[in-house]
Amino acid sequence: MKEYTPEYLSLIKDIIAQRDDEAARRELQELHPADIAELYEDLDEKEAEYLYNLLDDEQAADVLIELDEDDRKEILSEMPAEDIAKQIDHLDTDDAADILQELDEEDRDEILAHIDDVEQAGDIIDLLKYDEDTAGGLMGTEMIVVNENWSMPECVKQMRVQAEDMDEIYNVYVVDNDNKLKGVFPLKKMITHPSVSKIKHVMQCDPVSVKTDTKIEEIALDFEKYNLVAMPVVDSIGRLVGRITVDDVMDQVREAQERDYQLASGLSTDVETDDTVFQQTRARLPWLLIGILGGIGSAWILGHFEAGLAVNPTIALFIPLIAGMGGNVGVQSSAIIVQGLANGSLDVKSSAKQLFKELGVGLINASIISLLVFVYNMITIGAGDVTTIAVSVSLFSVVIFASVFGALVPLTLERIKIDPALATGPFITITNDIIGILIYSLITSYLMNLLGVV
Amino acid sequence: MKEYTPEYLSLIKDIIAQRDDEAARRELQELHPADIAELYEDLDEKEAEYLYNLLDDEQAADVLIELDEDDRKEILSEMPAEDIAKQIDHLDTDDAADILQELDEEDRDEILAHIDDVEQAGDIIDLLKYDEDTAGGLMGTEMIVVNENWSMPECVKQMRVQAEDMDEIYNVYVVDNDNKLKGVFPLKKMITHPSVSKIKHVMQCDPVSVKTDTKIEEIALDFEKYNLVAMPVVDSIGRLVGRITVDDVMDQVREAQERDYQLASGLSTDVETDDTVFQQTRARLPWLLIGILGGIGSAWILGHFEAGLAVNPTIALFIPLIAGMGGNVGVQSSAIIVQGLANGSLDVKSSAKQLFKELGVGLINASIISLLVFVYNMITIGAGDVTTIAVSVSLFSVVIFASVFGALVPLTLERIKIDPALATGPFITITNDIIGILIYSLITSYLMNLLGVV
Repeated sequence: MKEYTPEYLSLIKDIIAQRDDEAARRELQELHPADIAELYEDLDEKEAEYLYNLLDDEQAADVLIELDEDDRKEILSEMPAEDIAKQIDHLDTDDAADILQELDEEDRDEILAHIDDVEQAGDIIDLLKYDEDTAGGLMGTEMIVVNENWSMPECVKQMRVQAEDMDEIYNVYVVDNDNKLKGVFPLKKMITHPSVSKIKHVMQCDPVSVKTDTKIEEIALDFEKYNLVAMPVVDSIGRLVGRITVDDVMDQVREAQERDYQLASGLSTDVETDDTVFQQTRARLPWLLIGILGGIGSAWILGHFEAGLAVNPTIALFIPLIAGMGGNVGVQSSAIIVQGLANGSLDVKSSAKQLFKELGVGLINASIISLLVFVYNMITIGAGDVTTIAVSVSLFSVVIFASVFGALVPLTLERIKIDPALATGPFITITNDIIGILIYSLITSYLMNLLGVV
Repeated sequence: MKEYTPEYLSLIKDIIAQRDDEAARRELQELHPADIAELYEDLDEKEAEYLYNLLDDEQAADVLIELDEDDRKEILSEMPAEDIAKQIDHLDTDDAADILQELDEEDRDEILAHIDDVEQAGDIIDLLKYDEDTAGGLMGTEMIVVNENWSMPECVKQMRVQAEDMDEIYNVYVVDNDNKLKGVFPLKKMITHPSVSKIKHVMQCDPVSVKTDTKIEEIALDFEKYNLVAMPVVDSIGRLVGRITVDDVMDQVREAQERDYQLASGLSTDVETDDTVFQQTRARLPWLLIGILGGIGSAWILGHFEAGLAVNPTIALFIPLIAGMGGNVGVQSSAIIVQGLANGSLDVKSSAKQLFKELGVGLINASIISLLVFVYNMITIGAGDVTTIAVSVSLFSVVIFASVFGALVPLTLERIKIDPALATGPFITITNDIIGILIYSLITSYLMNLLGVV
């Protein structure tokens, strides 16, 4: 990571203040586009705009794609469509489509109309049609494609022409006369097999590929499993339509995991540390409101038991223990399931086996926990006291229930095709809180009646 | 992802049962090593072993690296050191070092002594010296290195020799006469700039590189920021010693995020859905035991207030609401901080600003929540009742406290170089539970005294 020292930042700010175009250009020339994008975060809007206008179209486009969505929107909102089109023309089609996706339709069409390279504009329009979270939405169309029947020298000549405009090339894709994907030809073979009669004799057949409608999560697992840096995308009849690169997949993996983490932590929308107080409140309040309902639900249940609490107020002391334990156990078991489903190690088909395992884990934990608390209460309250018995019996039931319930909910959501990550965190905690309180109230009432304490 | 149909699995199991070596070899030939590793999970130990023994050394090595750590240990434990050495000889040095890292020192030395290629063995021994979570521990030594003063044809000749044994090549690294890293030469340029006098005129100067002791998290952020597929590693004086590839980094990103997610969910060690009941219990029990301490702590605090509870048992009904709300709010604010620190968007230097923001978010949430609950209690209990007032005042204090405390703990841990993810989940929940109960007890006692309810 580039760390900007305060000295460097004040140097840059000075250059900007003096409107020293030449010095500014010199500094910008030294920086990678991603570093320029990062530098913007330490500058105010006016300063960033000044630097941005000094960049040539290609550099500006590279910086644009590296910026935060919010910052990018701000910069684009002040640029004429013609200038945006010029910059976008320098980007790979997948990056261009990602940027255009963020704009409203009117602006998008205006920019597309200004792109000089009609073929590039056409490709972008095609890409915009795909779902954002499928291979089609993730792919770009820049790639080197050769025909399986070409000879090696013919390929090299073609590759030279096609490679001219491309930033990075890792693979050459081989197709037949119908444009159907036949193989992949790692660039490395250019070195080790310099002159073989036909490309089909050196290519790797049956390459790992995905269809345009394959979901992002599945693509990411394939990249990780097969250690890929790029993957071809084919249409429903196997014709090569694009390629996905590992950098886009990595971004997706991080985003998906951040989303799961946020859901588990009770954040309802994507939130960053540099979001405003109001943006953060909007992401956090929904779950807290559900938490209020849960707390009021618990109060309502306990309300039916108020007479018992008046007779034996010691019962109330253990409410946090029972509710908390239900929440903690439930979060653990739901997290294991959600993660297993996300990294592909768990198949929803083996639900029954998994629930049975949860029951086993729950039984062991429940036994240990209720025994430990029993010993504590035996010493402090007495072994025969109704509270001692009620707390341990309730803990035992709550821990087993929470273990199984925490696993059951995400497995069920996955089965009915709802994101199982929604089931984690606050949802499980709050549900288990209420059910824990219910179990505790019922068991205590029953025991108090039985022992004639009321 | 490869999905094994029940039909395919029973076909394979039949072939194994009949010990039909030829048919088994034919099936294995069709599969990618990662798919073979996955197939093993659906077979029993004996079946997997039979298939494994049919593989040639190179294929076996590729499968080995794709297996789960547990499965790999099982297979290796039954193989003589000589055979393991033969397989490891086919792996890249970084993969070989990863496998050897998992064995005890005695086995490791025995295997290394059996590796025929002494240079390879020496490289592996060097790699084993580095910390696992640094660039040195992640890098391999397989790479194509050329001298900046060579001419293009000379380079191509050298590259051909060096590339022979390598699986994948993305970049050619350029060094000076002292082996100091000078530049990177993307393979693509081989196509577009086929004949330039000297390599130093086409190479990219000042490539992004890391030192051997750079931490994995930082490396991952660099790969994502600069969209890299490989990165050179240099020693303290800038000499090229290895390279890191994107597939290893992706694995690391997933592992690091899974670890954070597990910590946030109260799992103390890495746990998978296919772990045994006892492994899962071991990962889950520690936090539950701390949860017991927390619950008993809450009971102890409430115990000092038992007289008040006996006079006004309605107070007890809102214990779950207060404790739960403290937990939920705390988890939210700690999660935002932990994630910001993990993805590099938050700098520990801006702690004060972040805490101030949390205070703002806390104030808004606290006002809304305590007002809503006040309205509910006003209707159900009455506006002047001590419970109504005590619950809303406590909620207000607890939400603000939990917001700030949830952010303060991970920021402090980061500052003293302890993993901030440790602060999430159960730790924050349990602490906020107890402190919530304490605040509620104190405020209620004070109000009951003030209003003369006792």
